[in-house]
Amino acid sequence: MIVGSGHIPSETTDRLFSYLRPLMCLLNRGSDTVSSRELARLCKVNPSVIRRDFSYVGNLGTRGVGYGVVELMENIRRALKFDDDMKIALVGVGNIGRALLEHVRFGMEGFKIVAAFDNNPEKIGRTVGRLVVEDAIALEERIQSEAIQLVIVAVPEICAPDVARRVGDAGVNSVLSFSPCGLAMPDNVRVTCVDLSLEMARLVYHSSSRDGARGKDGAA
Amino acid sequence: MIVGSGHIPSETTDRLFSYLRPLMCLLNRGSDTVSSRELARLCKVNPSVIRRDFSYVGNLGTRGVGYGVVELMENIRRALKFDDDMKIALVGVGNIGRALLEHVRFGMEGFKIVAAFDNNPEKIGRTVGRLVVEDAIALEERIQSEAIQLVIVAVPEICAPDVARRVGDAGVNSVLSFSPCGLAMPDNVRVTCVDLSLEMARLVYHSSSRDGARGKDGAA
Repeated sequence: MIVGSGHIPSETTDRLFSYLRPLMCLLNRGSDTVSSRELARLCKVNPSVIRRDFSYVGNLGTRGVGYGVVELMENIRRALKFDDDMKIALVGVGNIGRALLEHVRFGMEGFKIVAAFDNNPEKIGRTVGRLVVEDAIALEERIQSEAIQLVIVAVPEICAPDVARRVGDAGVNSVLSFSPCGLAMPDNVRVTCVDLSLEMARLVYHSSSRDGARGKDGAA
Repeated sequence: MIVGSGHIPSETTDRLFSYLRPLMCLLNRGSDTVSSRELARLCKVNPSVIRRDFSYVGNLGTRGVGYGVVELMENIRRALKFDDDMKIALVGVGNIGRALLEHVRFGMEGFKIVAAFDNNPEKIGRTVGRLVVEDAIALEERIQSEAIQLVIVAVPEICAPDVARRVGDAGVNSVLSFSPCGLAMPDNVRVTCVDLSLEMARLVYHSSSRDGARGKDGAA
């Protein structure tokens, strides 16, 4: 295993994301260092798993002292490519689009939503979050002028394949879709679909099944 | 290992959720059966992992035929306790609350949002999704009359600890919070926090890092 190398198993990257929130809490509490045992308790994973995961981010800690919280967060963010600021466009300023524009902290997590589009004249020109909603007719032009790397599609299901095709034709090959994906999605883009019902089911399962093994540290 | 037993490792439950979407797609395409090899390709996991996961849901398939898609989905839903219809209340009908009320398919995923609350007089009495928004003052009373088992909190950060405390006092011990959780959360409830920025970062990471090992089957 090459320490800090580019290849990190997907199970490890999934856990690396989940370490960031408890680390942020520790930092807010004024903790400069954390042991793998303490972090394991907060994250509900085995300390040996944490030590193995951290070997991928090139931070092995100091025996008897633990890991530096700030250094650890920086290394995790670097391993997860948070320090490449990815430029994202959003198409569709409905409930989900508004929630993303208003609640996602811009630039904190390694990506920025730099443009938002809708085709509803009542929405075009209005400010949502920090952006002015633009006419969807300008999508292709703006993808190129802003050097957009990924497009979030949050439009009605029936419009999603057409938007995805336009995104692909404009040269962006990654789409994150909050619209259900069927077979109508075009071949010229890779589409990751978020099924809100399933994601909620997953969260509900986890928040209601923690009486047993998972303990009482949900707020940490 | 006891086939179909109650204890399923969390890695397995995570994967079981992720099998449901491709299975639904297969069903929509008219496929009655699926081999572990085909499902592995769609889900981007190893066929041996799939076979091991399915041994927990008590569906071992038929050699040379594969798994029955409908039976498999039913068994997975049962293993994930989707057939217990959990009653959920939502507090806070802002962007996230509206998105949940309007886009999550009621009853499809083993839980039902049966009541929604807000303290804004302009929202109380309005219909969102299939529910009429109720005055948050009635929260405790309605938790008891509806036998609510879990409460989703999607209110401004400053209000979240108070809402969580009221939920706990009313006898519900599980809260799923879309508000950032600090140390102010009360002890009488278990709080699962959803950090929208981190979840988006995770999705962005996955949708932009699939050029290598992950192939081109995002829409499947």
